[in-house]
Amino acid sequence: MRLSQFHLHTERETPAEAEVASHRLMLRAGMIRRLAAGLYTWSPLGLRVLRKVEAVVREEMDRAGALEMAMPSVQPRELWEETGRWEKFGPQLLKIRDRKDHEYCFTPTAEEAVTDFFRHEFSSYRQLPVNFYQITNKFRDEIRPRFGVMRAREFVMKDAYSFHVDEDDLLENGYRPMYEAYERIFTRLGLRFRAVAADTGAIGGSASHEFHVLADSGEDALAFCESSGYAANVELAEALAPGERPAPSESMRKVDTPVQKTCEDVAALLGIPLARTVKSVALMAEEGFVLALVRGDHVVNEIKLAKVPGMAGFRMATEAEIQAHLGCEPGFLGPVGVRDDVRVLADRSVAAMADFVVGANAPGAHLAGVNWGRDLPEPHVVADIRNVVAGDPSPDGKGVLSLARGIEVGHVFALGKRYSEAMGCTVLDESGQPVHPSMGCYGIGVSRIVAAAIEQNHDEAGIRWPEAMAPWRAVVCVINPKGNPDVAAAAEDLYRALNEAGLDTALDDRGLRPGAMFADIELIGIPHRVVVSERGLAAGTFEYRARAADAPEQLDRDALFTRLAGR
Amino acid sequence: MRLSQFHLHTERETPAEAEVASHRLMLRAGMIRRLAAGLYTWSPLGLRVLRKVEAVVREEMDRAGALEMAMPSVQPRELWEETGRWEKFGPQLLKIRDRKDHEYCFTPTAEEAVTDFFRHEFSSYRQLPVNFYQITNKFRDEIRPRFGVMRAREFVMKDAYSFHVDEDDLLENGYRPMYEAYERIFTRLGLRFRAVAADTGAIGGSASHEFHVLADSGEDALAFCESSGYAANVELAEALAPGERPAPSESMRKVDTPVQKTCEDVAALLGIPLARTVKSVALMAEEGFVLALVRGDHVVNEIKLAKVPGMAGFRMATEAEIQAHLGCEPGFLGPVGVRDDVRVLADRSVAAMADFVVGANAPGAHLAGVNWGRDLPEPHVVADIRNVVAGDPSPDGKGVLSLARGIEVGHVFALGKRYSEAMGCTVLDESGQPVHPSMGCYGIGVSRIVAAAIEQNHDEAGIRWPEAMAPWRAVVCVINPKGNPDVAAAAEDLYRALNEAGLDTALDDRGLRPGAMFADIELIGIPHRVVVSERGLAAGTFEYRARAADAPEQLDRDALFTRLAGR
Repeated sequence: MRLSQFHLHTERETPAEAEVASHRLMLRAGMIRRLAAGLYTWSPLGLRVLRKVEAVVREEMDRAGALEMAMPSVQPRELWEETGRWEKFGPQLLKIRDRKDHEYCFTPTAEEAVTDFFRHEFSSYRQLPVNFYQITNKFRDEIRPRFGVMRAREFVMKDAYSFHVDEDDLLENGYRPMYEAYERIFTRLGLRFRAVAADTGAIGGSASHEFHVLADSGEDALAFCESSGYAANVELAEALAPGERPAPSESMRKVDTPVQKTCEDVAALLGIPLARTVKSVALMAEEGFVLALVRGDHVVNEIKLAKVPGMAGFRMATEAEIQAHLGCEPGFLGPVGVRDDVRVLADRSVAAMADFVVGANAPGAHLAGVNWGRDLPEPHVVADIRNVVAGDPSPDGKGVLSLARGIEVGHVFALGKRYSEAMGCTVLDESGQPVHPSMGCYGIGVSRIVAAAIEQNHDEAGIRWPEAMAPWRAVVCVINPKGNPDVAAAAEDLYRALNEAGLDTALDDRGLRPGAMFADIELIGIPHRVVVSERGLAAGTFEYRARAADAPEQLDRDALFTRLAGR
Repeated sequence: MRLSQFHLHTERETPAEAEVASHRLMLRAGMIRRLAAGLYTWSPLGLRVLRKVEAVVREEMDRAGALEMAMPSVQPRELWEETGRWEKFGPQLLKIRDRKDHEYCFTPTAEEAVTDFFRHEFSSYRQLPVNFYQITNKFRDEIRPRFGVMRAREFVMKDAYSFHVDEDDLLENGYRPMYEAYERIFTRLGLRFRAVAADTGAIGGSASHEFHVLADSGEDALAFCESSGYAANVELAEALAPGERPAPSESMRKVDTPVQKTCEDVAALLGIPLARTVKSVALMAEEGFVLALVRGDHVVNEIKLAKVPGMAGFRMATEAEIQAHLGCEPGFLGPVGVRDDVRVLADRSVAAMADFVVGANAPGAHLAGVNWGRDLPEPHVVADIRNVVAGDPSPDGKGVLSLARGIEVGHVFALGKRYSEAMGCTVLDESGQPVHPSMGCYGIGVSRIVAAAIEQNHDEAGIRWPEAMAPWRAVVCVINPKGNPDVAAAAEDLYRALNEAGLDTALDDRGLRPGAMFADIELIGIPHRVVVSERGLAAGTFEYRARAADAPEQLDRDALFTRLAGR
């Protein structure tokens, strides 16, 4: 592509609307333009990148034997009623009424539509397994669309759905090959990523992994163990029980904490580590008032809490409920001396503490040197109710956990029979009996990958694309093409030769001054830059600079081709 | 592709819902499945064809220098208000309300969105011309969606929009190259088509051509001249004035036509050619009551009528208005002896008639032997107000017209400044003055092409794809693969070799009996079929049959490759 024939529209100014690096850089590079809240036009430059991601996704889905098809964006209410999702999906489902007052939605996902297709076309286990996918626009009516295409309302998603005669086949011939295809996709895209075990949540299902692009700006916290390969969303990673509880060495005493309501403030006042304090969280659950205890340096994990028997559907206690049960305002709560109807739920770490500090259930006071069994009864329940932290032992017992932040770009999910049962979808099994097929669903946020890649790969000057995603792998720059026909001709020749060698290359023949041209090239993130100049021509060399390199180098033609081909 | 790994779902029964051949065959071949009225899922087989069409469109758009981009499907009301189309587009515009009660539409076309993109990114004539295109799903809320994907509500459209500093540049660097690109696209797709001059209609604009795939089932009537290349929609083709009016040879006489109200019935009763009768059509226009006259064998063209001075906005007269002006019921109307406030508008052909037959303005009576100037005054206005018929002289004076029916699959339109003016979009011209760019828009109904190609190319057995659109160019059939490993291995080998030679080939290894297998292959329309059999292996030949051929032939391997490569 000759850039003089292309449309590049870069901006020096940082756009006010953008909160994260990828959004800023995509706007500055002119990859996208906002049409309305959460709705973006992809410029020719942006679309080149999007299409490169799509192509890799498509190739690997095809290689895994999935069959591409396309379902309509607009889907009838009746279909979504069959699974109850017309209501359950909530306000993210964009509902539409046509001229005849029939109701539809703009599809955010297509389990219903694909199951409808399947139930009309499949009748026997002999036709299974099968895996259908599509790469199409989806819509989620986010209440607060933001971060550009990272959380847009309309976005490009690859969604796949596999059907199997039973759960074993789903895991072996659906879930596993998709998991492996995803690993190939993100590897080929040149992204640093992790597949992490995810919560199967309210939908149920037997297995679920999220694929995250690692980036400090990611919204999700991930826990992983370098030595064992264990990885999970922090929400799901188990915090193992620590060792034995030490023997008490202090006696319990009341300490004045007139304005110190947080563990941090109390630890600072007392000059002790935060890990010696205990946070008391007041909750209401099925069986009544619960005081959940975690170490001062830990964070309560609500997903784990909800899984503790009796805690499903818990909520925070109100100030009135706290007063009624503990006779104290929040900030000074604790488990010592509480009434019989207060249940104490201790995190494993808390249950293993001695000589700890808790609120005294009296304004302006805490208790220090507290010990289980002596100063208060053993907790009613001990469970894992906190987020893991860096340095925790890995749940597989093979090392310690590290933490990282990630951006979820893919999800594989063993759904089971939820949709096939709800929609009355059966096939005949080997014995001639109708069975509900087991399903898997597998999503990739194609447009989100573009933003996630930038979050992971950028610097002060702009984007640093992985080669597989770059709008062009290389650019040949020519300075003052009109004033120097020899240089222009040599640049043209090199540009053609590189493309003929299969190296997707642009020619910057716009006639900009070098500073402006190079700034554009760095902003839009082309991995390899080659400058053709009069002096270089005389010396038989080209000025080559990798996007990531500190300085250019002079290469002859053979060396240049070798470098660009990555050999 | 191994068909045992693919999903084919063919049906022998003709589906009741389908009215036209393409709809029937697409359903029977399992290319599409209806999800709701006018909404179709494209199966893997259907999508293969759709993607082949898309690929040709994309290649030729790129070759013509157009830049691909992508605009959102969901577009805000405010944008459509700027051009007044939020209301003017009518009920085909699918309107959407989001969770915050903001209004949007599902885009049926994108003049507003692309002009909004343009006005933010372009400022100078030096950046022009530019042509943006996208291949995306569009939606028109048809009141009566039918004929499958031929008139679906959600469909795939390629839409392009070019911007130019002035009208000359629009025609030279936008309209003309797009016209030529469309010719290449439909030629490469292997379709018999015609580009016809179209009415620029209410939108205005300076030039407009429709591209039609020729098919007897087409909804549009086209007129063209084989010898000169002239072609136009029948609505637009000019009917030239015939030669001199002959001298009268009969005297006027009243004839009894007790129940004969149509020209056909009157001509039959009198034993004269239909071309000797004149049809009188009563209209109300600006200046009052108008009697429009066309020959009995001609059809009034309302678009031409509306272009006659004073006739814009005409309507049919009511029965009461006819009674008031002519004192007669419809069926016996005529121009002889009418009051002064009845204006007579004669088609050119009628003005050149002598000794003709018209209604007598009396029940059960007509007048024969009528002549202009003698029995009634010359018409107030003579104009071209009829559709051309086969055999009419070509308007360019270079032959005679033929008629054909067509399916509109493409449209190029020189829009002018309508959108750039309405949306306040300007660039600076060479003299530094702001000017509204001239725009062109260029659409191709990508999904409709699939149906149109079938309308043009099918037989009793099924679809007969042009090679460029076929799901596979060839198929290698193997009979009883499990029972005959040598045949299976030879088929596999041939299948690989053909694909390696760049001939997109399927392997039918499903193990069906020959009859069922061949019926499938013919139904889904693969152009070339090769059968590998034991006997053929022994003889060193393959059984080859072109989809269009009457019988198979035996070819050796070299001859087979030569035939399939089209050399």
